[in-house]
Amino acid sequence: MTEFFNVLPPDQARELLLHHMTAVPHPETIPTATAIGRVTAGPQHAPAPLPAFRRSTMDGYAVRAADTYGASDSLPAFLTVIGEVPMGQPATLTLPAGQAALVHTGSMIPATADAVVQLEHTQRIHGSQAEIEVMRPVAPGQNVLQVGEDVAEDEEILPAGHRLRPQDLGGLLAVGLTELAVARQPRVGILATGDEVVHPTLITQPGQVRDINSYVVSGQVVGAGGIPVRGGIIPDDYAMLETAVARLLADCDMLVISAGSSVSARDMTARVIDGLGEPGVLLHGIATRPGKPTIVGVIAGKPVLGLPGNPVSAMIQFDMLGIPAIYRLQGLTEAPYRPVVRARLVHSVPSESGREDYVPVRLEDSADGLLAAPVFGKSNLIYTLIRASGLITVPLNKAGLEAGEWVDVRLF
Amino acid sequence: MTEFFNVLPPDQARELLLHHMTAVPHPETIPTATAIGRVTAGPQHAPAPLPAFRRSTMDGYAVRAADTYGASDSLPAFLTVIGEVPMGQPATLTLPAGQAALVHTGSMIPATADAVVQLEHTQRIHGSQAEIEVMRPVAPGQNVLQVGEDVAEDEEILPAGHRLRPQDLGGLLAVGLTELAVARQPRVGILATGDEVVHPTLITQPGQVRDINSYVVSGQVVGAGGIPVRGGIIPDDYAMLETAVARLLADCDMLVISAGSSVSARDMTARVIDGLGEPGVLLHGIATRPGKPTIVGVIAGKPVLGLPGNPVSAMIQFDMLGIPAIYRLQGLTEAPYRPVVRARLVHSVPSESGREDYVPVRLEDSADGLLAAPVFGKSNLIYTLIRASGLITVPLNKAGLEAGEWVDVRLF
Repeated sequence: MTEFFNVLPPDQARELLLHHMTAVPHPETIPTATAIGRVTAGPQHAPAPLPAFRRSTMDGYAVRAADTYGASDSLPAFLTVIGEVPMGQPATLTLPAGQAALVHTGSMIPATADAVVQLEHTQRIHGSQAEIEVMRPVAPGQNVLQVGEDVAEDEEILPAGHRLRPQDLGGLLAVGLTELAVARQPRVGILATGDEVVHPTLITQPGQVRDINSYVVSGQVVGAGGIPVRGGIIPDDYAMLETAVARLLADCDMLVISAGSSVSARDMTARVIDGLGEPGVLLHGIATRPGKPTIVGVIAGKPVLGLPGNPVSAMIQFDMLGIPAIYRLQGLTEAPYRPVVRARLVHSVPSESGREDYVPVRLEDSADGLLAAPVFGKSNLIYTLIRASGLITVPLNKAGLEAGEWVDVRLF
Repeated sequence: MTEFFNVLPPDQARELLLHHMTAVPHPETIPTATAIGRVTAGPQHAPAPLPAFRRSTMDGYAVRAADTYGASDSLPAFLTVIGEVPMGQPATLTLPAGQAALVHTGSMIPATADAVVQLEHTQRIHGSQAEIEVMRPVAPGQNVLQVGEDVAEDEEILPAGHRLRPQDLGGLLAVGLTELAVARQPRVGILATGDEVVHPTLITQPGQVRDINSYVVSGQVVGAGGIPVRGGIIPDDYAMLETAVARLLADCDMLVISAGSSVSARDMTARVIDGLGEPGVLLHGIATRPGKPTIVGVIAGKPVLGLPGNPVSAMIQFDMLGIPAIYRLQGLTEAPYRPVVRARLVHSVPSESGREDYVPVRLEDSADGLLAAPVFGKSNLIYTLIRASGLITVPLNKAGLEAGEWVDVRLF
């Protein structure tokens, strides 16, 4: 054990974990088209300007702007249409003064034109195939996208550590970046422990419960961009746990152990983690409820969490510690924003100063706006989380929340 | 064309679309362990109570509560420990009055016990292996989870149309529901059209642009739980578009066409949609900017959207119309909450009354709190969305927003 054998507030616990761990090595290059949700391994730069040629933003006529100055309904400018720029083709026409070329939205603009008159501001002269009246003047550049106006050549288009959104894929592909380097998806090993725990497909005997923590944590891992690697259920046996943990950790970038429920089982988990390498167990408890007996460790840069066997504690602590760790493993500079809504608390919630409490609440609409109703039940009942929309936090320095207070509900 | 050939506000456009479409048929049964993010096809009921036996919530001693009444530090109750209930085993001990059994957190409680005394409130009597002092009284039921206290047998545990979260998987598995019926993931066909559009792997020639809308929409489809089916790029040719659309629609539950950029190309898209079946085109424009020339149709219950070729319009309109449609296809009763943050607008934003405007903004921290800086640039530049954190809305009835106003930023 290290000098950190103590209980810390949750923010400090998270900082301690993130400080000791390292991001996954060996980025991989993948097709941009499949990179949604992945995290850039380095900054991306535009190899070419966008657009690569001057484009019309309107259906209309490419013109020399000077030819339209002073044009109005009563005194239109007269121009001769010398042709059309077809979509997808180079604009090869040369436009002498007094002439115009039909263009469509997205057409290339002839080199000698400098603006586009909207179709609606022109009319064909009766009886003529080639002459139009222009009723509005345009300024140079009007209705024209300039080369590089969207993004300039060599411009940094995305920083390192950025989680790719749909529009980012579009921006990369638009400049021809059809593949890119992204962080590997962290492999997160998950072990359940406990003599009472059986595989969920089994019929339980009296005294037995099904493993659910492995699957709840798997769902959380997927949501954060990791790959869950379930290692099964280990009995409360030091040697077996040690073997299973060492093997799974070698194959993964992070490890989560759903520790046995009893104090002795938790102690065993801590000893196993500590025996695996340096720095070992950083922290043996967090000043929260539920979830106090959470073990936070790091082995050679890989986070190792010992979650309480209680499924509510396990899920909440993994949310508070495990998900930020998975983001950090991917090099994410800014964690995705977690949706929060404000609501009025329906019932008072007691707590103790010096401890951060997480209370499941159910959101309900009312004539007075959104209400947050605490979901009652002992703190280890998984259905309290199923019946809830999210969690509210009673801060460290408060001894509870009053009915009628406004609270921030952190949605699941 | 139907009687709906008109322009509607966005909320009405969405309602019209959702009203005419039908959810995907044929739910599928899948393992619960893989069902994260899927939507329940029907309500789920608990086949057994949870817990299935009375469990201790503490490390301590199972007792008859009456034996502890009046116990205190100065006047402890004396009990004889007759054994231990091992984890994962049935509690076969019979507990006569005055006796106790060692239990662990999660242990089964002997039938003749009705409470658990916490280990910390007891001590072994010096020199005795079997006798303990109890320093605190416990009430009947204290530190014991009753059968069905988490969820009762036959209780509805999840409604139909519920998107499965990590804890829901845990709740299902805890009661032995290792598979369940969920809505099929909707297949969303995506076509790009336009003579100027080329595959993103190609070197563009002057006048050509790469297809990005197919990939941006694919990313959005994945995020909403659908399966994107990209049908490639179709030139501006009625017969080719008609063939491609009919073929892809037959294979999919929804179709998205990134319409050509010009007015004539958009008209062609509308005619093709209308020729496919009933009710056809519902709506030919939405009172928004960007994205006004959006085509909303339904063919035999399947949504068909004609998005503007402009990538910003396409993404924003798909967000406003396409994503709710994918949720509805899955039978989702309540769309996931979209994260919104309040921030102070840095620059004024002009608009026009009668139109809902979506303006990309970048969030910036400041000493005075969060700021929303509008991202400048013409409304068809994809990088305005890449540089932005989210969108603000200028409502239909407002002619703009003032610098310094508080705005809700809908995050991407």
